[in-house]
Amino acid sequence: MDARISISSEQRSTEEALIATVEASFADCADPRMMQLMQSLVKHLHAFVRDVRLTEAEWDKAIEFLTAVGHITDDRRQEFILLSDVLGVSMQTINVNNQCVDDATEATVFGPFFVNDAPEISNGGDIAGGAPGQPCWVEGTVRDTAGKPVPGARIEVWEADEDGFYDVQYPNDRAAGRGHVFAGPEGRYSFWGLTPTPYPIPHDGPVGKMLEATGRSPMRASHLHFMVTAPGLRTLVTHIFVAGDELLKSDTVFGVKRSLIKDFVEQPAGTPTPDGRNLVGRTWTRTRFDIVLAPEIPR
Amino acid sequence: MDARISISSEQRSTEEALIATVEASFADCADPRMMQLMQSLVKHLHAFVRDVRLTEAEWDKAIEFLTAVGHITDDRRQEFILLSDVLGVSMQTINVNNQCVDDATEATVFGPFFVNDAPEISNGGDIAGGAPGQPCWVEGTVRDTAGKPVPGARIEVWEADEDGFYDVQYPNDRAAGRGHVFAGPEGRYSFWGLTPTPYPIPHDGPVGKMLEATGRSPMRASHLHFMVTAPGLRTLVTHIFVAGDELLKSDTVFGVKRSLIKDFVEQPAGTPTPDGRNLVGRTWTRTRFDIVLAPEIPR
Repeated sequence: MDARISISSEQRSTEEALIATVEASFADCADPRMMQLMQSLVKHLHAFVRDVRLTEAEWDKAIEFLTAVGHITDDRRQEFILLSDVLGVSMQTINVNNQCVDDATEATVFGPFFVNDAPEISNGGDIAGGAPGQPCWVEGTVRDTAGKPVPGARIEVWEADEDGFYDVQYPNDRAAGRGHVFAGPEGRYSFWGLTPTPYPIPHDGPVGKMLEATGRSPMRASHLHFMVTAPGLRTLVTHIFVAGDELLKSDTVFGVKRSLIKDFVEQPAGTPTPDGRNLVGRTWTRTRFDIVLAPEIPR
Repeated sequence: MDARISISSEQRSTEEALIATVEASFADCADPRMMQLMQSLVKHLHAFVRDVRLTEAEWDKAIEFLTAVGHITDDRRQEFILLSDVLGVSMQTINVNNQCVDDATEATVFGPFFVNDAPEISNGGDIAGGAPGQPCWVEGTVRDTAGKPVPGARIEVWEADEDGFYDVQYPNDRAAGRGHVFAGPEGRYSFWGLTPTPYPIPHDGPVGKMLEATGRSPMRASHLHFMVTAPGLRTLVTHIFVAGDELLKSDTVFGVKRSLIKDFVEQPAGTPTPDGRNLVGRTWTRTRFDIVLAPEIPR
């Protein structure tokens, strides 16, 4: 693997001198953090090029790949986020910024499908908005790490329908499978969503081609997205996953954490619902997700 | 700089476990070189994120920046190449693939302005094609590392005009300041070009904004591009630079190598030209560039 073994000391000096020169070019940067970011980026990019002895043809391919990623990206499709996701870079950034605090709920990737201004749903209401899928009753509480309920916490949820698509992947503008509820007086919340189903990330673009070329699956483990915000507490961006899902081990964006895997308990048709809703003979599932928000940390 | 000092061992394990998982996701890649590239890329990207403790806001900015780079890139403008250039990644790739062989001429960056099918110019002819600038007589020989002349070597040259623009940066389709000559019987070649002048890389886009934000100049040292090809010999992509140019020390794409700096000797108006051309009272310059091609290496 270390092809550098075969290079001459003169060649090594040439390569190292270049890195020093590039790092020094950022020495006049007025913003010390920006300087640190650029110098570290240069150091690591050059280490990559040298470690693999990148060929010019491979460099060409990389430029071509990034160009294709750029060209497919628009207001509704963010292929750079997808790329960051499938390389685990998004998840590593989440890790770095969300160190575990006591028993606070763990964070995971944001993903490209969040939309601002999703509809407000009353506590216990239905976020499906007509999206097809098996109904799923989700309930829990929002507390802080001292165990104190957080009434008024805003809980944004979003998910794919049973065909594996988010509303924004359809050519119309309806909001479906997304919305927000506010936690009630004891920090309690609940809503009707859809039982999560596995789906591929959009894989008809360059990122999908890369996954195929490297023998990787584009499938995400079944999940339901959450973003929970409350004044004075750290914003939580996370998912819950479905216990027993075969894809938990190979989630293509590396979002799974053990603490986020929940039982989605199947209810036979006719089982009375928690809020008396009549599901006209359909099966449904129920799950519980108790959320603990960490204290806000100064950034 | 090493912010990792303050992280817990549990946190460190979480971060390292993620890297191992992402690397393992490429274990089924059928192409061993592709596997090596992806695993190394992941390792270095994650090391960057961890070293700088990249914030989520910074990650957002990075996605935004790459998106802008993608959107400004089209058939005539390649902002990803520009980005690779100003981070020294292009030059490092050149270094890695063009280790010095005896006294073979050194390589430097290709740049984004080469065009296929530039006109053929007879040996001693003029490549300016109407581009404005001071005439410059360029002459030399093409030899191999054994000193044997290489008649028939194809010498592509391209350069900016005195206003700092390449023909492709103008909104018409003329070829100017570019062309190719073939080396003659003794490996000799010559042509009239323009005395190179400094110019900024295109800096009205995201890469230019990055340079500005980091206190870097967008200027390139004055240069004239060469690409020399001959059967059985390694293709040489290089420039020659102008001795005395103040920008030699801060070339924004890190392309300067000492061996490529040449004297461009100013000739007073009226000095007889090598080929008897009448420059009607203008000054001109002359330079010599003897090219030595390395043996072809199997890739």
